[in-house]
Formats: sequence, structure tokens, C-alpha cells
Amino acid sequence: MNSTINKLIQALAKLPGIGSRSARRAVISLVGKDNGELQALAKLLQLAADTIRPCAVCGCPTEGEKCFACADAGRANGQLCLVRDLADIMVVEKAGVYSGRYHVVGGLLSALDGMTPEDLNLAGLPARVRAENITEVISALPSTTDGKSTAFYIKNLLADCQVKFSEPAQGVPIGGSLDYIDDGTLAIAWLDRREI
Amino acid sequence: MNSTINKLIQALAKLPGIGSRSARRAVISLVGKDNGELQALAKLLQLAADTIRPCAVCGCPTEGEKCFACADAGRANGQLCLVRDLADIMVVEKAGVYSGRYHVVGGLLSALDGMTPEDLNLAGLPARVRAENITEVISALPSTTDGKSTAFYIKNLLADCQVKFSEPAQGVPIGGSLDYIDDGTLAIAWLDRREI
Repeated sequence: MNSTINKLIQALAKLPGIGSRSARRAVISLVGKDNGELQALAKLLQLAADTIRPCAVCGCPTEGEKCFACADAGRANGQLCLVRDLADIMVVEKAGVYSGRYHVVGGLLSALDGMTPEDLNLAGLPARVRAENITEVISALPSTTDGKSTAFYIKNLLADCQVKFSEPAQGVPIGGSLDYIDDGTLAIAWLDRREI
Repeated sequence: MNSTINKLIQALAKLPGIGSRSARRAVISLVGKDNGELQALAKLLQLAADTIRPCAVCGCPTEGEKCFACADAGRANGQLCLVRDLADIMVVEKAGVYSGRYHVVGGLLSALDGMTPEDLNLAGLPARVRAENITEVISALPSTTDGKSTAFYIKNLLADCQVKFSEPAQGVPIGGSLDYIDDGTLAIAWLDRREI
């Protein structure tokens, strides 16, 4: 019917979090209004495509050579947080409890998805840990089988680096009522219970 | 944290059908992969911004001067379908029961939203109906109060044009069970019942 509009819908629909229905609504709204919004979005995307590159140190997408955390000398506090991607950095930053640096692993080891250690951003990690005098590595990788095995693999990879390796505590979420908690989480929270 | 990435998330989140969470996931996936996909999407959006304009006849966003329906002489069958936007054209085309032309009204009359007849693409409609020898106008505007009053306004606007003015039948949708149908629809379907 209209090839550019259909191509645009297909391109948006391929992105995670946007289905074909949402893509159609978004594109039709864009092309239906006056031309300015479409031009602005095209320019912004082109700017992003031209300027955003992985941080030379940690792999986080960024505009400069180094990302906000690697460029900030105040964040060289000996802590290094392993995350899967930028989305997880945003979540950790929002929680406001961490002020060290990040390392973007870029995925999880998975036999099913065919992800091997070579596919992850790990080759330079031991050298980085030594160069930045890291004393504690905190794994903020997902609490899934793949996340746990990736963290375990990285722990082994850093065995000679003499770092403490930790992960956030598991348990009942704040505001979580017991009937919505899965058995595994409740079991861990139960065994890890504290006096109050 | 990263201004271009945040601007891109905000721009996507403003589009209908995409919330801030979906926008964040989509943008992070785009900037996290290799650069090609981001470049391609930027180019596609720029192409759309440069080429897509309202059809000179019916107002439907299109790449040429005329849209697919207005450019097709085979669709000059005396029928004209009123739609709100391109999304509704797609739905009608998919149903495969209509082979005439469209007129994109571009919105609905609404006192609450401050939409007046001047805001809609109606100024040239009577002349178009006469020029194209339209005999039947089918309103595919929404079955809402605003949609109905817009259709009624257009019916009056075309009072001198001697056209039949129709709309699709209302009733129980195919596969619809009675306990999910609202009272108003059931009442209309009941009064309009047919022998089987």
C-alpha cells in the first residue's frame, strides 16, 4: 500500500517492547501530523547513530569515548558492578545505593541461545580489574539460571585477581505479600531470615 | 546520564502505543547492538520525513502526489468511505469487502477536545463528491458519540449532493458471546434481528 510507511512499521515492530500494533499506531500518528515531529525524530536517530558507541572501558553505550561512570574519577572506589546492559545500569543508578563503576557484560551465557564466553564483553575484564585496583565485584546479573551461571563463570575468570565477589541479597520484595512470592524465593528468604 | 539516549527515549515514549518502559527497552536495544540497525532506522525515518505528504485528494499520508486509492482509476466506483486516519484504511482494506475510494477526515468533532469542523479535512468534500460522481458515502468513523456526531455533520454537509449515506451494521461481533457484549450493542442487535 505504501512501502516506506510499511517498512517503518516493520522496523519499529522488530524492537523489543514494541509489537506490530503499537508500531502501526506510532507510525500512523507520526506520518499523519505535520512534518516537524517526523523530521525531528529522524534527526535525533541519525545523531544517535553517528555519536553513540560502546564505552572504550566498560562497553556501555555512550556519546564520548568513556561513559559517565568510567569518565568520573570519583567513581574509582574499588567496586565494579557487572550488568547485562544499559537498562540494568539505569535501574541500579535509580536505586541510589551504588557509586562505583560498571562493566557491561552484554548478554548471558546460554547453551540454548548459543551464547559462549567469546560472545560476551569479558576478554579485558581481568586486566581491567587489576588496572583499576578493584577489590569487590558485585554481580547485578539476573537471578536466573543463565544469570547465575554467567556470574559463576566470571567469578572463576577472576579467581587470580583477589577480589571479593558478591551479589544483592535475595528475598521477599518490599510490599510483596507471601501469596505472590514463588516457592524458591520464599525458601531462600526463609533460610536467610533475620531477627527483628 | 546520556543526553541523546534520554532524548530518544522521551521522543519514542511520546508516540501513541509506546509507553516510557517500551521506549527505554527499544532504545537500549538499538544503541546496544552494532551500529547498522540504528543507521538504517535513522535513514528510513528521514526518507519518510522527506517523502510522505497528505494525498492531494483525500488526505491520506502517501509518498506520491496521490495515494494508492486515489491513483487507481479502478476504484472510481461511485463509493466513498469516510475514515478517521490511515489506520482505519488499513483495517477496511484488510476486511477485503470494499473497493472504492477513501476520504481521511483526520479527527472527530469534539467539544471536549476543541475539534471544530475547520480542524477536519472537510472543506473540499462536497466538491470532491460531485467531481467524482460519488453515489454512496459510507461512514467508517468510530461508533462513539463523537464519531456519530461527525458522521451526522458530514451527512448534513453533503445534503445537496444527492448521495446515499450509510454505515456498517452494528451487532454482536463474530465469536462474541453475549456476556461480553455491552447493553447498547445487544439492544441494537436485538431490534435488528434476522430470521435464520
